[in-house]
Amino acid sequence: MEYLKKLIRDVPDFPKVGVLFKDITPLLQDAKGLKDSIACIASYVENKKIDIVVGAEARGFILATTVAFSIGTGFVPIRKPGKLPYEKASMTYNLEYGTDTLEIHKDGIKKGQQVLMVDDLLATGGTMNACCKLVESLGGNIVGCAFLIELGFLNGRDILSKYDLFSLIKY
Amino acid sequence: MEYLKKLIRDVPDFPKVGVLFKDITPLLQDAKGLKDSIACIASYVENKKIDIVVGAEARGFILATTVAFSIGTGFVPIRKPGKLPYEKASMTYNLEYGTDTLEIHKDGIKKGQQVLMVDDLLATGGTMNACCKLVESLGGNIVGCAFLIELGFLNGRDILSKYDLFSLIKY
Repeated sequence: MEYLKKLIRDVPDFPKVGVLFKDITPLLQDAKGLKDSIACIASYVENKKIDIVVGAEARGFILATTVAFSIGTGFVPIRKPGKLPYEKASMTYNLEYGTDTLEIHKDGIKKGQQVLMVDDLLATGGTMNACCKLVESLGGNIVGCAFLIELGFLNGRDILSKYDLFSLIKY
Repeated sequence: MEYLKKLIRDVPDFPKVGVLFKDITPLLQDAKGLKDSIACIASYVENKKIDIVVGAEARGFILATTVAFSIGTGFVPIRKPGKLPYEKASMTYNLEYGTDTLEIHKDGIKKGQQVLMVDDLLATGGTMNACCKLVESLGGNIVGCAFLIELGFLNGRDILSKYDLFSLIKY
């Protein structure tokens, strides 16, 4: 699947000067690229029992729901504050500057469910770590975290060391 | 597919007093509900030629990408300002109070492509209309607009009357 890397576009100085942004939109709009990416993530959990797939707003929704559909489970969204309408659990976590908060519906995860986390990008791992803790606070077991892209030089695996991680495209 | 309606949760007074919010998260987290919803939308375009599926941030991403995967096309996101990294086209449209702007990558749609638009909710139709105009500004042909839910009493079909519309669950 080495060709998938060619479908990732480098955009310099986005979202700020000095950052080389990995743009996944050329991959998403390529029918074979989308199909193969989902198939690879699905094959990562082929021999694992997964009850539900979780993904965070907004880009995480793209792959997580499609993986859920592909492996035959449902999907649960994690959203920014104020977006989910029903009873919620929330988690505040540290960013480089300041903090951020994420929310999940309390009835999104049932105690003991086997959960696959999916996101497009593993960077510092802070957001995924907060998402995992949210799911665990509701009694879910994190079976694994799957990413389309991993920026290895940001060492996101360190903060997520207790989880099983999979990434399709590594830098 | 009448059972799908039972998977939609009514949440009173969200996002503001007097609004009865249709919460699709119970449907999304139900494996069969998600699978059947996607299958129904896919069957709507069964005999139509579709080159690409488009969906708008954030909830539109959920179903649009999954439909794209299901029918074997790619997916193109429409996002809020400043979120897409590459060369963009943008569209500003009127809301009840004020305006909003949406963006799409200029290379997201090729001239003459047959486009399926997917979103979770047809309310007033303003957002979908802006999305269709964005796609058309790049030379795409709107084959149809598919929604999980239609709030018929808001008459969203009026503003979208030039397009072929499909909705799975009607209120």
